[in-house]
Amino acid sequence: MDLFEAIKGRRSCRNFSPDPVPEDDLGKILEAGTWAPSPLNAQPWEFIAISSKGVKEKIFSEAERCRQWAIEKTGWKWLGKYQLDFLKTAPMIIAVIGDPEKSGVDMFQEEGRMGYQHACAAAVQNIHLAAYALGYATLWFTLFDKKVMREILGVPQEKVPLALICLGKAGSEMPPVSRKDMARNIRYIR
Amino acid sequence: MDLFEAIKGRRSCRNFSPDPVPEDDLGKILEAGTWAPSPLNAQPWEFIAISSKGVKEKIFSEAERCRQWAIEKTGWKWLGKYQLDFLKTAPMIIAVIGDPEKSGVDMFQEEGRMGYQHACAAAVQNIHLAAYALGYATLWFTLFDKKVMREILGVPQEKVPLALICLGKAGSEMPPVSRKDMARNIRYIR
Repeated sequence: MDLFEAIKGRRSCRNFSPDPVPEDDLGKILEAGTWAPSPLNAQPWEFIAISSKGVKEKIFSEAERCRQWAIEKTGWKWLGKYQLDFLKTAPMIIAVIGDPEKSGVDMFQEEGRMGYQHACAAAVQNIHLAAYALGYATLWFTLFDKKVMREILGVPQEKVPLALICLGKAGSEMPPVSRKDMARNIRYIR
Repeated sequence: MDLFEAIKGRRSCRNFSPDPVPEDDLGKILEAGTWAPSPLNAQPWEFIAISSKGVKEKIFSEAERCRQWAIEKTGWKWLGKYQLDFLKTAPMIIAVIGDPEKSGVDMFQEEGRMGYQHACAAAVQNIHLAAYALGYATLWFTLFDKKVMREILGVPQEKVPLALICLGKAGSEMPPVSRKDMARNIRYIR
């Protein structure tokens, strides 16, 4: 698929069809993740491809706990209606785990240890795009406690669970995405 | 260009040709950035397209100051040889500025205020890919102090300069990128 078509594709699917993701497609999608750029080309990511029903249910419970917390903390009404069932119904969840030791020079900077996270976010975007190009829908999910997610996924203390990407075929047609007027976010220094 | 071809493309160009980037191409590249996903679709980025020689020189000076600091701090020998002239010779630098107020629910979390940075990193990756697809080379640069960069670019205190992307035609052929064995970074929970 043409790059620009994939870039304009809809993300944030919340209604997945139960069809499993074939190994071959999953492999291409994960490989796309590994091609993201990173500080000193350290490739500071691990991808965990989760299809286990039991583990997806644990993830759902943790996210639901965080949602209840967030409803109280933020007072945002829409959160009360935001059902998290997609964490159970998505046939696959890809967890992206970062390694803070592979962050480049910014390991030594005051507001540092961010480079590895930025690289992992670039990998997430590659995964989104590759999934879309292969006919899949995705959702980038981050409402979880890192400590709890480490336990659920068996991730060692020194690594950081940064994102979950729900992956599967869309169960219904998805509306197009909206964008702000570009001119509002762009400035020139000539 | 096919998405997967762009994904495997080389980044981190350090030898740019002086050819300017036409407005039309720059517009497509920046638009690709604006299509990145973000928490609550808040689009927490601003892009500053810099072609001013004077401003590029100020950026170079700041980066050079940080490089000298980093040589002392890290003891990494390669930094002594890592010339930063590409910051002056790249015909264009795109600065990506993030807005911490547009970070989604994670604004309220303990290790929060990261969602906006992840969204901006996804935008950086879109910019890399779009540039490559249009025949340009790029380099993702982050060795600068945020406070100093705010001053150079006229960015208000509450926004965060997260990345500089050098952009232009490659001045010489670029070697292919290497990747770790994929199996090392992928795990399955079935």
